[in-house]
Amino acid sequence: MDLARRTALATALFFDCFSFAAVIDYYASPPNISTLFNNTIYYTWRPKSHVLPPYGHAGDPCRHFYDPADGSFHVGYLYSAGVGPSGIAGAITNDLVTYFDVDEDPTIIYNGGINDPVAVFDGSVIPSGINGNPTLLYTSVSYLPIQWTIPYTKGSETQSLAVTYDGGRNFTSIKEGPVIPGPPFPITNPTGFRDPYVFHNPRLDRAVASANGTWYTTISGGIHDVGPRVFLFRQYDADFRDWEYLGEWWHEPINSTWGEGTWAGRWGFNFETVNVFSLSQTGYDPEGMIFTTNGAEWSEAPIIPQVSQFREMLWAAHNLTTGKNGSVHLEPIMAGKLDWGIWAYAAAGKFLPSGSTPSEASGTSTDRFVIYLWLTNNDFGTNDFPTAQQGWDGALTTVRELAEGTISNVVDNGLIAGPASWIHMWHSYLRPREPSSSQAARLIASNSSGVNFMQSPISKAFILKTCLTFPSGARNSSDLRAGLRILTSDQESTIVYYQFFNESLIIDRSNSSAASATTPGILNNNEVGRLRLFDIASTNGTVSIERLDLTILVDNSIVEVFANERFVLSTWVWSWYAESTQLAFFHEGSVGVEFGNVTVWEGLVDAWPARSY
Amino acid sequence: MDLARRTALATALFFDCFSFAAVIDYYASPPNISTLFNNTIYYTWRPKSHVLPPYGHAGDPCRHFYDPADGSFHVGYLYSAGVGPSGIAGAITNDLVTYFDVDEDPTIIYNGGINDPVAVFDGSVIPSGINGNPTLLYTSVSYLPIQWTIPYTKGSETQSLAVTYDGGRNFTSIKEGPVIPGPPFPITNPTGFRDPYVFHNPRLDRAVASANGTWYTTISGGIHDVGPRVFLFRQYDADFRDWEYLGEWWHEPINSTWGEGTWAGRWGFNFETVNVFSLSQTGYDPEGMIFTTNGAEWSEAPIIPQVSQFREMLWAAHNLTTGKNGSVHLEPIMAGKLDWGIWAYAAAGKFLPSGSTPSEASGTSTDRFVIYLWLTNNDFGTNDFPTAQQGWDGALTTVRELAEGTISNVVDNGLIAGPASWIHMWHSYLRPREPSSSQAARLIASNSSGVNFMQSPISKAFILKTCLTFPSGARNSSDLRAGLRILTSDQESTIVYYQFFNESLIIDRSNSSAASATTPGILNNNEVGRLRLFDIASTNGTVSIERLDLTILVDNSIVEVFANERFVLSTWVWSWYAESTQLAFFHEGSVGVEFGNVTVWEGLVDAWPARSY
Repeated sequence: MDLARRTALATALFFDCFSFAAVIDYYASPPNISTLFNNTIYYTWRPKSHVLPPYGHAGDPCRHFYDPADGSFHVGYLYSAGVGPSGIAGAITNDLVTYFDVDEDPTIIYNGGINDPVAVFDGSVIPSGINGNPTLLYTSVSYLPIQWTIPYTKGSETQSLAVTYDGGRNFTSIKEGPVIPGPPFPITNPTGFRDPYVFHNPRLDRAVASANGTWYTTISGGIHDVGPRVFLFRQYDADFRDWEYLGEWWHEPINSTWGEGTWAGRWGFNFETVNVFSLSQTGYDPEGMIFTTNGAEWSEAPIIPQVSQFREMLWAAHNLTTGKNGSVHLEPIMAGKLDWGIWAYAAAGKFLPSGSTPSEASGTSTDRFVIYLWLTNNDFGTNDFPTAQQGWDGALTTVRELAEGTISNVVDNGLIAGPASWIHMWHSYLRPREPSSSQAARLIASNSSGVNFMQSPISKAFILKTCLTFPSGARNSSDLRAGLRILTSDQESTIVYYQFFNESLIIDRSNSSAASATTPGILNNNEVGRLRLFDIASTNGTVSIERLDLTILVDNSIVEVFANERFVLSTWVWSWYAESTQLAFFHEGSVGVEFGNVTVWEGLVDAWPARSY
Repeated sequence: MDLARRTALATALFFDCFSFAAVIDYYASPPNISTLFNNTIYYTWRPKSHVLPPYGHAGDPCRHFYDPADGSFHVGYLYSAGVGPSGIAGAITNDLVTYFDVDEDPTIIYNGGINDPVAVFDGSVIPSGINGNPTLLYTSVSYLPIQWTIPYTKGSETQSLAVTYDGGRNFTSIKEGPVIPGPPFPITNPTGFRDPYVFHNPRLDRAVASANGTWYTTISGGIHDVGPRVFLFRQYDADFRDWEYLGEWWHEPINSTWGEGTWAGRWGFNFETVNVFSLSQTGYDPEGMIFTTNGAEWSEAPIIPQVSQFREMLWAAHNLTTGKNGSVHLEPIMAGKLDWGIWAYAAAGKFLPSGSTPSEASGTSTDRFVIYLWLTNNDFGTNDFPTAQQGWDGALTTVRELAEGTISNVVDNGLIAGPASWIHMWHSYLRPREPSSSQAARLIASNSSGVNFMQSPISKAFILKTCLTFPSGARNSSDLRAGLRILTSDQESTIVYYQFFNESLIIDRSNSSAASATTPGILNNNEVGRLRLFDIASTNGTVSIERLDLTILVDNSIVEVFANERFVLSTWVWSWYAESTQLAFFHEGSVGVEFGNVTVWEGLVDAWPARSY
C-alpha cells in the first residue's frame, strides 16, 4: 500500500470513528446508509473470520498455491483498492484459519501491463513453474465489456504468465505476449475464454499419451448459440510458453440442465472458473474420480445484452472418455450445487499436500483439496448496496475441503432415482473452542416459532451445531418447516429452516435487516437450497428419515449453513440492531420434529491477527 | 503535425539556415558533419522527386491503395518524426509523380494502442474493407527486439485492423484484439511473423475452393532452424476479424539460394515484406503468373545475435501446386533481384486499376502493379550516418511498374541455361520534359576514362539515357569496363559501368563523396548488380550481343540505374562539392564499345508541390 492510499484510508477511518459516534446508533432505526460518509459503516457488517482485503473490493478467489519452500498455503482473490490499477491480492496461511496479507498492499499483480492493459482476471498457479518458481497463468484482459450476453470482442481475454521470485508477494509478468492468445480457429465466437485452471492428472496423461506430470489447463467459456464449454490445453514446453489445444473437453447443450434442473441448477450459456481435480474418500487423489466445479451463467428469455441474470456454482463428477479420433471428453455422472447461495460463486480450489504446514498443524495426514468461494456483496456489482459507505465489499467464504462421500444404508426406493447427487464437504477449519453455551434437545410437536433459547450469544459471531430428527410422517407433510431463528430481536429475525414438501433448506431473510427498509441495495430476498433426506435402514431393519445435521456459522453479516456434510448455503444477513443476537427454535406444521442438543461456540477466531484494523 | 512539433521544426529550420550561412561551403572540403547542429544539412542531399517525409525517418513503404472514391492512389511508408509515437505516414498521388501529404502531420496511424503499444510495422490495405471503408491489416508490435538472429518473443508481432473513415488521412484501430494473434500451433519458434499482404487471386480461389473475390493474406517470416516461409491465411468473415490458416504457402530450406546464388541472391533465414501478385505482359492480370517479391535476411556464420548482416530484395515467379492433402504451395520457377542496391529493400506494391486517376492521367489503359522500395540512409539503422544533422533519413525509390516480359530472338546457347531470370520493369513515371542536352553517339576503342561531355548538367537532378553496344569479342574480354562517370568534379566522381567478365553492372562509389573522409557513416563501398546480356539473332541470322540500354536517374543523393527494363540498382551518392555535376564517358580495356546518343533531361519534377520546405 503506497503512502497516498494509507493516508486516504487513515482519513477514511478517522471519518468512520467520527461518523460512528455522531450518527450511528445500533439501538435505533437505521438511517439511509447511502447518505452517509464513505467508510462510515466499515465495521458494521465486517466479518472477523473470513478472507477479505483490508479495504476495497474482493472478487473471485484464485491463484491459491502451496509453497513447498516454507510449507505455507497461499490464498488469492481478485482485488481492487477502488482507485488505480487492480489485480489479484494474496494472503498466506499456515492453518487455514488465520491469514496474513502478503504485504501492506496485498496486491500481487496489477493490471496495466502490455498483455493486461485493462484488467487481470482469475489465474491459477503452477507451484514449480518457470525456473522452479511459482508461476501464475491468468486471464489478461485487453478489452471490456465481456459477457456471454453480447458478441465476443476478439482478443479481449488472453492467457498470460507471471512469476514470483519473492515467495508470492509479487508476480511479475514475463516479457512475452499471451501464451494462449485465444481459442483456436475456427472458434471465433466464444461466450467467454478465461479463468485458466492448471492441473496434473495421471489418468489424462495416459488417455492422451502425455509424459507423467504434464501440466494441463482448462479455459472456461462457451460458444455462442452452441453452449458452455471447457477448453483443454496441454503444456508444450518446459517454460509453459506454448500450450497445445486438446479440444472441447466438456461441453453441454446451450442452456441445458442436469435432469430437470432441480438439484444441480442449469449449465446455462457460459462456464466460468472451472476447476478440475480428482477425489477419493480421503480427499485429493490423482487416480480418483475426476470432479469439476464451475460457475454457470444464464438468463431467462429474452436475453438482455450485458445482463447475466443468474449465476450458479455447480460441481460435477465425470467419466473420462476417449473418442474415436483420440479426443478426450468429460461426461458428467453426478452433479450438484457447490453452494446454494445465490451470491456464492467463482469457487477456486487447490491441492494441499499432506506435508503442508496447515496439514501438519491440524494433524491431517491425507492430501486435500481445499476451496474458497466468492460471496459478492452487491449482487455481482449490479445493485446499489452502499459499498462506498462500507469501504469494502465482497469476501471469500470459509475454506471448505472436498472429498468423495457415500451415505450408508440408503433404502433403495424412489428417493435415490433421478439425478440428485452431492459432494462430500467438510468445513471444520474454524476449530471451535469449548462451547460457550448449549441448549438441550427437545421435541417440538406443534408450531413454535417463538421458543427462544435459554441463552443466546451476546455477539454476532458464533458457530451453532444441532440436528433435527423427523418422523416418517414428515414425508407426507405439506406444511412442515423446522429450524432455527438466528440474529433475532424484536425488530429483526432470520430463519434457517428445512421445508419438507419441496426438500428445501431455506434462509428466510425477509425480516433480517431493518436497513432494508431505509437503504437501497440491502436486499431481503430468501435463499433456498435443495437437500434430500434419504430413507436410511438401521441394522435392525427399521427405516427412518436421515437425520438433518445443521451447522450454522454466523460471522456478523455472513451466514453459512452446512447440512449433512453435503450441503452448504452461504449468504449475507445484514442485521442492524445490536440486540439482534437471539436464537430460537422454529417450527411450523402439524408434524412434530425432534431437535437434538444445540451447541453454540461464540467468538470466532480473528482471521487477520496482524492487521491493525 | 501538432503545434509543438511545428515549433520544433521551425526552430530546427532556423538553425539550419543560420548554420548553413555560417559553416557550410560546398566549394571547400567538408567538415565532420556529425559535429554540426541538428538539421544543418537538411537540404544538402535531399532528393526532389522521391517520396519521403517532410522530416524524420522514412522506413518500409506499405499501406498503398487505390481509392475508388476519388480515383487517387495512396502511398504509405513507416514513419517516425523522431519523438513520440511513430507509425505509418501517407501521401496521395494522382499521377505517380507528384505527391501530397495526407495532412500536415502525414501520420495515418500511430503506435501506442492496446494492440500496438510498442510499434506499428508494415500493413496492407483492403480497399473496400469493413463497412466498405479502406481497411489496413498491419503488424501490431508489443515487444522488441524482434529479429531472426534471436529467439522469438511470443506475441511480439500480431496482425491487427484499422479503418479509415476520412479517405485515408487517419486509420483508426478497431476495438478488438489482433485478428491474427500469432502463428498457429505448433509453430512456436518463428524467425518472424509480420508484414501481412492482402490480395485477391482467382487461381488460388479455385485451388482452395474459395468464393470468388475472397481475400487472402500472407504473413512473412520463417521458422528457426528450418528456413524462411510465407504463411497463408484466408478471410473467414465479412469483417475480416478471423483468418483461416492455409499453411506454409512457400518455404525454402534454411539459408539456401536460387541456383548458386549468383543471380537471385540468397533466400536466407527469414522472409520479410512478401508481396503476392499476378502479372501478364500487359501488367497486373489476376489470371497471370503468380509473382512474389520478398526481403530475405541472412548472415555469414557465426550468426551474431541482433545483427542481420545482409538483406536482399528478391522476386520470384511461381507455379501454384496442390498437395495430396489439399494444401497449396508456391514453387519458384524464376527468381531474381528486384533491386540490386544493398540499401534498397522492403518493396511494397499494389494493384492500380486502369481507371484510376494516375492511369487516366497517363493514358494507360491496362491494369498495373506498381511498387516502391525503401532506400535506407544509414544501412538499416546500423551505421552512424549523421542523421540528426540531416534531419531526415530514408526515402522511397521512384515508383516502378512490373509486368511479365520476354526477350525475343535470344540465341539458344549456354547463356540461357541456369537459373538466371528477370522481371520486366518500367520506370517511366517521371515523365521527362524535353531533353536539356544530348551527347552524340561515339565509338570508344580504347581506355577513355576522362572523356568529358561537351555539356554537363549544372545541377544534381537529371535523367540520362544512353545505350552501349558491345562487339562480340567483348564476351572473351577480361578487362572491359564501360559506362559513365556522373556527379564528377576534380574532387569527386561516381562511375556507373558494366564489367563484362563477371556480367556486372557496378556503381563505383569509392570516390563519390569527399565527406566520406571527414564524417563517419558516409560509406564509400561499391554497389554491384548482375545483368546478363544475351546473344540475339537478327532476322538475317547474324548474332550480336544484346544492347545495354541504360537509364540513370540522379536526384541529388539518390542514384537509380535502370538497364534493359529488367535491372535496377538504387543507391545513395553523397557528393559534396557543388561542382560535382560533370558527366564523362568511362571505358577501360582493350575491346572497344559503341556508345549511343546520350540524352539528358535536367531538372526533375518537384514531387511535393504543396510542401513549404
